[in-house]
Amino acid sequence: MPNAKVTFLPHDVSIEVPPGTTIIQAALDAGVHINASCGGEGVCGKCRVRIEAGEPVGGVSERLGADDLRKGYRLACRTEAAGDLLVRVPVESVVDAGILNRPASRRRTARIRDFNLGELKEKGLFLAPVEKKCLQLPAPTAQDNLPDLSRLIGQLRREHDEHRLEADLAVIRKIPGILRESGFQVTTTLVRPVRADGRTRIINVQPGDATGRSYAIAMDIGTTTVYGQVIDLVSGAVLAEHAEFNGQISYGEDVITRIVYAERPGGLERIQETLVETINTILARIIRASGVDPQDVATITLAGNTTMTQLLLKVEPRYIRRAPYVPASSLYPPLKACELGMALEEHVTALVYPVVSSYVGGDIVAGVMGSGIYRSEELTLFLDVGTNAEIVIGNRDWLACAACSAGPAFEGGGLQFGMRAAPGAIEDFSLNPATLEPMIATIGRERPKGICGSGLINMVACMFEMGVIDNRGKFDPGLETERLRRTDGVLEFVLAWENETQIERDITLSEIDIENLIRAKGAIYSGCMTLLAEVGMEIQQIERIVLAGGFGSFVDLDKAMTIGLLPEIDPAKVTYLGNGSLLGARMSSLTNRIRRDVTEVIRKMTNFELSETPSYMDNYIAALFLPHTDLNLFPKLQARLAANRRLRGRSENSGAPQ
Amino acid sequence: MPNAKVTFLPHDVSIEVPPGTTIIQAALDAGVHINASCGGEGVCGKCRVRIEAGEPVGGVSERLGADDLRKGYRLACRTEAAGDLLVRVPVESVVDAGILNRPASRRRTARIRDFNLGELKEKGLFLAPVEKKCLQLPAPTAQDNLPDLSRLIGQLRREHDEHRLEADLAVIRKIPGILRESGFQVTTTLVRPVRADGRTRIINVQPGDATGRSYAIAMDIGTTTVYGQVIDLVSGAVLAEHAEFNGQISYGEDVITRIVYAERPGGLERIQETLVETINTILARIIRASGVDPQDVATITLAGNTTMTQLLLKVEPRYIRRAPYVPASSLYPPLKACELGMALEEHVTALVYPVVSSYVGGDIVAGVMGSGIYRSEELTLFLDVGTNAEIVIGNRDWLACAACSAGPAFEGGGLQFGMRAAPGAIEDFSLNPATLEPMIATIGRERPKGICGSGLINMVACMFEMGVIDNRGKFDPGLETERLRRTDGVLEFVLAWENETQIERDITLSEIDIENLIRAKGAIYSGCMTLLAEVGMEIQQIERIVLAGGFGSFVDLDKAMTIGLLPEIDPAKVTYLGNGSLLGARMSSLTNRIRRDVTEVIRKMTNFELSETPSYMDNYIAALFLPHTDLNLFPKLQARLAANRRLRGRSENSGAPQ
Repeated sequence: MPNAKVTFLPHDVSIEVPPGTTIIQAALDAGVHINASCGGEGVCGKCRVRIEAGEPVGGVSERLGADDLRKGYRLACRTEAAGDLLVRVPVESVVDAGILNRPASRRRTARIRDFNLGELKEKGLFLAPVEKKCLQLPAPTAQDNLPDLSRLIGQLRREHDEHRLEADLAVIRKIPGILRESGFQVTTTLVRPVRADGRTRIINVQPGDATGRSYAIAMDIGTTTVYGQVIDLVSGAVLAEHAEFNGQISYGEDVITRIVYAERPGGLERIQETLVETINTILARIIRASGVDPQDVATITLAGNTTMTQLLLKVEPRYIRRAPYVPASSLYPPLKACELGMALEEHVTALVYPVVSSYVGGDIVAGVMGSGIYRSEELTLFLDVGTNAEIVIGNRDWLACAACSAGPAFEGGGLQFGMRAAPGAIEDFSLNPATLEPMIATIGRERPKGICGSGLINMVACMFEMGVIDNRGKFDPGLETERLRRTDGVLEFVLAWENETQIERDITLSEIDIENLIRAKGAIYSGCMTLLAEVGMEIQQIERIVLAGGFGSFVDLDKAMTIGLLPEIDPAKVTYLGNGSLLGARMSSLTNRIRRDVTEVIRKMTNFELSETPSYMDNYIAALFLPHTDLNLFPKLQARLAANRRLRGRSENSGAPQ
Repeated sequence: MPNAKVTFLPHDVSIEVPPGTTIIQAALDAGVHINASCGGEGVCGKCRVRIEAGEPVGGVSERLGADDLRKGYRLACRTEAAGDLLVRVPVESVVDAGILNRPASRRRTARIRDFNLGELKEKGLFLAPVEKKCLQLPAPTAQDNLPDLSRLIGQLRREHDEHRLEADLAVIRKIPGILRESGFQVTTTLVRPVRADGRTRIINVQPGDATGRSYAIAMDIGTTTVYGQVIDLVSGAVLAEHAEFNGQISYGEDVITRIVYAERPGGLERIQETLVETINTILARIIRASGVDPQDVATITLAGNTTMTQLLLKVEPRYIRRAPYVPASSLYPPLKACELGMALEEHVTALVYPVVSSYVGGDIVAGVMGSGIYRSEELTLFLDVGTNAEIVIGNRDWLACAACSAGPAFEGGGLQFGMRAAPGAIEDFSLNPATLEPMIATIGRERPKGICGSGLINMVACMFEMGVIDNRGKFDPGLETERLRRTDGVLEFVLAWENETQIERDITLSEIDIENLIRAKGAIYSGCMTLLAEVGMEIQQIERIVLAGGFGSFVDLDKAMTIGLLPEIDPAKVTYLGNGSLLGARMSSLTNRIRRDVTEVIRKMTNFELSETPSYMDNYIAALFLPHTDLNLFPKLQARLAANRRLRGRSENSGAPQ
């Protein structure tokens, strides 16, 4: 279906949206304000708009009289654009023509970056990791009674020009039976060496012709969540995927508590088994869902942070959490998945992503591989933001990385009304600059329950641009709105009144909440500054940004730059990887080129311990402002703020009604 | 102590023997006949000799009167030569001066071939398989917090110029703890690649300086007996060795019954565990005896026949015993010893000797490696004789091999009075050509209990040369001796009378026993003929013989050539390896050169299934004679037989008294 074009009047701003988008969402994306408090549930009735052309879907409400409906009024939060619409925003939302001239700040999220096998092949990045060859062997006779494996290898040489082969004991154990039950027609699974000087391994033998059925598993081992995918190695398609909470959560939420648990007698074994149970739950689910025969699975590639990696491999993690924070190893050899306890066939090889340091783990390395930053000429900032933020800056020539503790603000933690990005979370926000009435949109179009990370960024950016808060994140105490109030000595802004929420309390944003966000974004921004300074560069030189992690997909890039979370670049140059760790694991499953490159990348990645880098604290303190002490780092924002000041000046002079 | 020279009169034959050798043994070795029936126990009293010079030790007996003793008479079987002796053999033993001129057939056994590390090095065959390097690592700091393994590998590179290293997961698991408990001084065990394009594996890390303590285990997995050695990789010395019966004997004596057992449900697992129990018993014993720290053991190299190899590795053996006799594999990858159930440290690699065919196994390949035949220019016959005989013929350019069933005759089986080479077994034998009185010597100088393999060969050879039996192995029915008699229609020769034995029955050699021996030696000789014919050569071209197996060391080479078991060559060109399988395993433990060469050797070894080679049956039938239908193949014997005939003629003409 073609996109629907939604045009807002009197602003005369248009936006193309996918059919089914609500008018309120279209307005948010177009930078058009419509008062709205209930998150899209249709109960507040504030978001009345009039449809002047086109066929709206829904939006009828008891909040609208028959007369209103006849005139074309609808509730913006409940009305979907199936086709093009012309929407007039009524005066109670649009109070000041001057405001209309505000440069529209359209909501722009990062382009999602994915890949397919064809793309890998086009870019010359494809080196088959697994190939299957079907053979019809001559049956042995008294004159020709070579050992079974020699017969097989000989035929692979003659028929398929295969050389430098070796076979695992497990394969040798299977060969005699399978050859004879299949009339000597078998399919061998060949795993190619990563290095040119390596040998091809025969890892499996199956009766009959099983070519064309070749699969791999990719997994991201997160501290909180484990994701798994079944990948078709022939088409590159993801056949099934599933996520489960990491069962280790019962030993503690973060990596430190997990390590502490693992230090107990028997703890490492127990916590490893718990993780493997989670993995096995996912494996069972995705293998069943994809319908693949486990015999056809060749490899499982796993990426996780350093602690998850060591816990998975049962490697003593105690020195990860103790200064000077030393992991056991960067690279791990290929392993038998079954030896780690995974419910996969004996022949399946487990490939574990290498790590750089205690806090720049295999998940980040996988993200770097998935992002292609190590092949790019452009200076790129790779950012994976969760409780910890991992930063990689560099290009094809060099890579610098660091981790910093961002705190939980981006995941909606540490705020009074913070929550994860779940139904009821305020994720989009704008404010009527004159009335300070908010427009909020929630995930799942429910009445609001709280604020998620991306919502928080949007709010703070919006308030800062409007002058509701200053560059230290403090509210303008002179604002004339009942929404601003002081509770227990702290100024807070009421986003939704008690009766508009699901939690039967006012949902507010306080100066303490804003301070948390500023600390979090300050840690990340100063991390970038510090890394760049260490390599003698400046943050303005960044040409590309790659976001990874659950956080990146919903963030309004302009807003993130407004608060100084991201350096100011063209939003078109920002891409979003999604789960970079899983993406990297998938790419490694599909081509040996990635596995070959990764050892080079690891060598190139220089780790900086920010806490040990003297300039970091200075940079951090300078970053504890919106967007930064040095506004020259954000020239576009600087221009917008100046324009806003001029508009506000005019608007005040015009004496617009409240 | 210098050898003692024993001179026999009236023969005027001298022989040098180690001090402590009995006169009867010296006589046997010198080819001098002395009547003797009791095997050396001194009870028959027949072996009276007179010491005419020198100081005899022992030999005094109630069978000799005071007068006899004064005159210097002693029992030859109880008298030891401590120094030089002049011994007169009395007339009842030496009946005919003509006989004295018989060319003395001294007992010559094969030279024992062993090697030491120095020899390997001199020959350019030394490529260190294992090396230990001690390192003092700088402790990590905040500025230098590389992963532990990277730190270790970096130091190995800087300090020891080590490159292309990889580490097992088990090593990574140990490193963090060991580095910190040892103040960052550690010793790494490096296992060198066999192929030049391979990588060095770090298999172990130990605290402090453990260089100079580097050991390996070599094992021969025999169907009946398992032998193990602890080898010092620095000096090459064998520090301890021990043998145990293979516990699988309880499932059957031979490989076929073992395979049958393994075909039962759960049988393979059970029979594998039984073998590993035997191995572990030996390991415990030799490790304790040698006093080595199990952490210092790097590898275990195992050689066994094809069935033992597959049972050890839990590889389905059923097709070994079914035509067309196909083993699962020739080469096996290096394995973790502990994964096979062996009670060795986790890092110990198990290296299993490759096999050629179902009946030419790793024991033979190990023997070939130990013998050096694959490096020799001379055309060599390698023979390992047990119940099965394995034959390898060739040189540095080609190797042909085959196995044939010799039956148990060489191990003393299948004869009416056959027994293993154990105390009481007749192992040496001669016959007075005039009186047909025997001279017998038994193992342990006990009264005879039976006949072992080497004794049987000596008997048959002796009787054949004297014309007691003809070239079909049939007794001359006209012989005038009460020792020759017919029992149940079969002619037999009484070797020892009832009252001279331990078994209280006459010990005899029958025509059926002789026929068994002829079949056995015929199978082997015709195997050699057939192999040579297949490569277009003739048996006279053989320049060297290498014997392996328990059998070879005691065989009188001239006798073995007389009966046509071995082709006729200079006995000085025959060497004896002892346990060739164990020797090859030891050599592989000491140098990678042998491990590299073995894969080449395996490729060169062409296997022939004798049962499928049409000429084999013809050759076999031609070999069912003493020594062969074609006496021209044995020119020296031919000359001796002619001389004997002349002597016999003279002796008959001289009318010598009975």
